Amino acid sequence: MAPQHEPVVMIVGGGFGGIAAAQALAKAPVRVVVVDRQNHHLFQPLLYQVATSVLSASNIAFPIRRIFRNQANVHVFNAEVASIDCAAKSLRLTDGNVAPFDYLVLAAGAGSSYFGHDEWAQFAPGMKTLEDATLIRDRILRAFEDAEGETDPAAMRAHLTFVVVGAGPTGVELAGAIKELGVDSIARDYRRFDAAGARVILVEAGERLLPSFTPESSRAAREALERIGVEVRVGARVTDVFDGGVDVSGERIMADTVVWSAGVGANPLGRALGAELDRSGRVVVEPDCSVKGFPNVFVIGDMASIRCAKTGQPVPGVAPAAMQMGTFVAGIIAREASSPGAAPPREAFRYHDKGSMATIGRAKAVAEVGKLRFSGLPAWLAWLLIHLVLLVGFHNRVLVFLSWAFAYVSFTKGSRIITGDIPSRIVRPLGNRDGNDPAERARSMALLKGRM
Amino acid sequence: MAPQHEPVVMIVGGGFGGIAAAQALAKAPVRVVVVDRQNHHLFQPLLYQVATSVLSASNIAFPIRRIFRNQANVHVFNAEVASIDCAAKSLRLTDGNVAPFDYLVLAAGAGSSYFGHDEWAQFAPGMKTLEDATLIRDRILRAFEDAEGETDPAAMRAHLTFVVVGAGPTGVELAGAIKELGVDSIARDYRRFDAAGARVILVEAGERLLPSFTPESSRAAREALERIGVEVRVGARVTDVFDGGVDVSGERIMADTVVWSAGVGANPLGRALGAELDRSGRVVVEPDCSVKGFPNVFVIGDMASIRCAKTGQPVPGVAPAAMQMGTFVAGIIAREASSPGAAPPREAFRYHDKGSMATIGRAKAVAEVGKLRFSGLPAWLAWLLIHLVLLVGFHNRVLVFLSWAFAYVSFTKGSRIITGDIPSRIVRPLGNRDGNDPAERARSMALLKGRM
Repeated sequence: MAPQHEPVVMIVGGGFGGIAAAQALAKAPVRVVVVDRQNHHLFQPLLYQVATSVLSASNIAFPIRRIFRNQANVHVFNAEVASIDCAAKSLRLTDGNVAPFDYLVLAAGAGSSYFGHDEWAQFAPGMKTLEDATLIRDRILRAFEDAEGETDPAAMRAHLTFVVVGAGPTGVELAGAIKELGVDSIARDYRRFDAAGARVILVEAGERLLPSFTPESSRAAREALERIGVEVRVGARVTDVFDGGVDVSGERIMADTVVWSAGVGANPLGRALGAELDRSGRVVVEPDCSVKGFPNVFVIGDMASIRCAKTGQPVPGVAPAAMQMGTFVAGIIAREASSPGAAPPREAFRYHDKGSMATIGRAKAVAEVGKLRFSGLPAWLAWLLIHLVLLVGFHNRVLVFLSWAFAYVSFTKGSRIITGDIPSRIVRPLGNRDGNDPAERARSMALLKGRM
Repeated sequence: MAPQHEPVVMIVGGGFGGIAAAQALAKAPVRVVVVDRQNHHLFQPLLYQVATSVLSASNIAFPIRRIFRNQANVHVFNAEVASIDCAAKSLRLTDGNVAPFDYLVLAAGAGSSYFGHDEWAQFAPGMKTLEDATLIRDRILRAFEDAEGETDPAAMRAHLTFVVVGAGPTGVELAGAIKELGVDSIARDYRRFDAAGARVILVEAGERLLPSFTPESSRAAREALERIGVEVRVGARVTDVFDGGVDVSGERIMADTVVWSAGVGANPLGRALGAELDRSGRVVVEPDCSVKGFPNVFVIGDMASIRCAKTGQPVPGVAPAAMQMGTFVAGIIAREASSPGAAPPREAFRYHDKGSMATIGRAKAVAEVGKLRFSGLPAWLAWLLIHLVLLVGFHNRVLVFLSWAFAYVSFTKGSRIITGDIPSRIVRPLGNRDGNDPAERARSMALLKGRM
C-alpha cells in the first residue's frame, strides 16, 4: 500500500485522552490528525492552583504541537469541529473545511452543567478551562481589593464570602486553597480587614464530600477542611444563583464570589453524533469504546459512558481513565491498520483504578490507592510527587516545582495578578466605570481620615 | 501634631515613579495612599518578552500592596481616578468616593498615541499593559496556527507577515524577538510551512532606529536586526492600518499581525488637571515637578514634561527618570512634612542619565553608559544583569531567570498559550464561529490528503 493511503486517524481534543491516543499511535502505519480549538493541552488537575494564584496559566498549559514535535506522523490543527458525518466518514470544521477520516476518536471532554439553569453560569463560573480559572482568580482577588475600599459592613461581608458549589475533588481543593490564600498569603497585605477571617463555604447536595471516595476519606477531608476554617454544608441544595449571592436550602448567602464545581455536562459534539446519551449527556459506547453502528468512531474520556469490562462498574470521568481509553483505542486502530482485514477481534475496555487523591490546603491530602487509605502529610507528599511526575515531558516541571516551593515556604502566592477588566488599548476616557450613580454610592472617604 | 493630622500624600499610579515616591516616604511623617486601577506594578521593560512567549504575565507583574506589605504608612487602593480638584485638594474616584489629600503625586504614565487615528488601535494594539502584551502574543501565535491550516498562498503570506510600527527600544526588541520566535523556537512545530521564513518588518518614520541613542548604536542595532532577517524600513510613513494589513509609504503590506510602538500619548488625567500640556500631551511642570499654581500637586514620570535643571535637556520618558522624579518629589514632601513652614526652599529636578540599552534577539544588544558604547554579547550580558538586579524585591527573580535560561538554552518558549478567544463558561453551541459563509470559505481539506 502506498504511503499516501495510510489511514487517517482524526483525534478531536488534545486533553489527556486525545494526547494518549496520539502518542500510542507513534509507530502505527497511520496519519494522525489532532484537532483542538485551543492551542494547548491543559493539566486540569492543577487548574484550582491557577484560580488561587499559586501557579500561573503557562505553568499548566502546553502547546499541543510542541508535545508532538518529534512524532512525525502527527499533524496538529487549531480548529473547531462544527459537525460530524459518521456515515460519510468526515467532519466539518467551523472555518468551512471538510476533513475526511478513516478512524475518528472523539475526546473533547465535558463542560459544566448547571442542571437546566445555564443563566447561573455568569454568576458562578465553572472550572474547566484556563479562562475559567483566570476569571475566578480575578474575582477572588477583586473581592479582596473591594473589601479594602469598603465602608459598608454588609457589603464588606459579601466581599469576604466565597461559596464553592460541589464537593468533588475540584471543589474540595478549591475551597481549601481559597481559605489558605486568605490565611497565609495575603492577610498582611490588607490594612482594613482581616483576610484570614474570610468565610469559605463549601456546599454539597450529597450526603458527604468526595462522593467517589470512601466514607473514611470523606470524613478525613471534612475534618481537615473544618480545621482550617472552611464551612462545610452537605445535603444542601442550591436553589438560586444571582448577582451577589446564592440561595442554599432556604438560606440566602450574600457573596461576591461563587464558583461552580458541581455538575459535568454534555459535550455538544456527543449530541451531534446522534448516538444514545446517558443522563449526564455522555455518549453510551460499546465495550470497545466505539459508537454503535460505527466501529471506526470511538468516544473516550469524559465524553464516554462505559462500564469496566472486568468490574462492571461505570468508568469515572478522571484523567487516568481517559488516558487508558486513549491507549486502548489506539491499540485497536494500530492492530487493524497493520493487518487490514486480518486484525484480531477487538477486546473490551478494562479500567485499572490506580487510586485517587485530593489535596486540602497546605500539606494535607487524602489518598486512596487500592486498599490503602492515607491522609495528612504522607498523602500530600504522594500527591506532590505524582503530579510532578505526571508533568514529565513538559518543561515547566522545574518552574512549577519552584513556584510551589516558593508558595509553601514563603506563605505567599506568586501570581496574584488581576487582568482583563481594564482592556485599555488606548488611554481610556475618564468617567464612571460601571454606570452606577456616583451620588448614590458617594461616601465621604472617611477611611482615609481614620486609622489605616 | 496628633498622628491623625499627618498629611495625606496621594500617589496616583503604581508604576516606577509612584512606587519610588511611596518607598522614599517610608520614614516621613505622612500617610501615603497609592491608588491604581490595576492591582499590579508592571515591569514594562520586559513586556515584549510576554508578547513573544518567553515570560508569562505573572513573571513581570507584582501586586502593588505586596510591595508595601512592610511599609506601615502606605495604604493601597485598587481604584480609578475620575477627576481632580487641585484647589479643593481632593480627587473623585469612579466608584463615587471622594478622597482628600494634602499632597498629590500624579504618576499615571502614558498611553499609546495613534496620531489622531484611534481607529487603528483595534488592528494594531500598543504595548503598554499586560493585556496588550497578552493580546499581541495571542495574535502572533494565532497567525502561526492559521498558517498551518492555510491552503491559499496569499493568505499564507499574510499570516506569516508581522509588522512592528515604531523603532524605539520596544519596537526594536519586539521585532527581534518575533523573528527569533519563528527561527529558533517553533520552526519544528509546524509541518506545512517554514516558520523561520516568516517576514518581520520594522517600520520607522524617522531616519534611524533608536532615535534616542547615538547614530553608532542605531547602526549597530540595524545591522544586528538585519543579520537575523528582520526587514528594516526607516523614513517610512504609515498612512493606513486596517483589518489585515498596513499601508507604508505607498505600499500595501498584507499582514495578520501589526503592533504599534510608535507614539506615546497623553494621559487623560493630565488633561483633567487643566494645566499646560506639551505637544505629546504631557503636563508641563515647574522645575520642582509641581503644577504651576499648585505647589502641592506634582506630576512625574511619563506624564510630565520637564527639562533637566543641569543639562537643560528634556527628561526622557524612561523608567529611571520616573524613579528619580519619584524620589525627588518624595524628598520635598518629607522635608516639608517634617518641618512645617520651615522647610528649605525646593530645588530643581536634575536627571542623572545612567545609560540606555536595547536587546536585539538572543545574546545581542546595544548599550550606552556615559561615554561608553558597546554592543553584542557584552551589552546583552549587561542588559540581563541589570534587569535581574532591577527585579530585586520581586520574588519571581529566580523564576524569571530560569525561564530565560530555559528559553535561551533550549531555543523554545515556555509560555506559548493562546487564551481569551474561547470564553467557554458552559459548553458552547456548535456552529460557525465567525459568521463567515462556510460555503465561501469551504476548501476541500486537500492538505490532509497531501504530505504532512
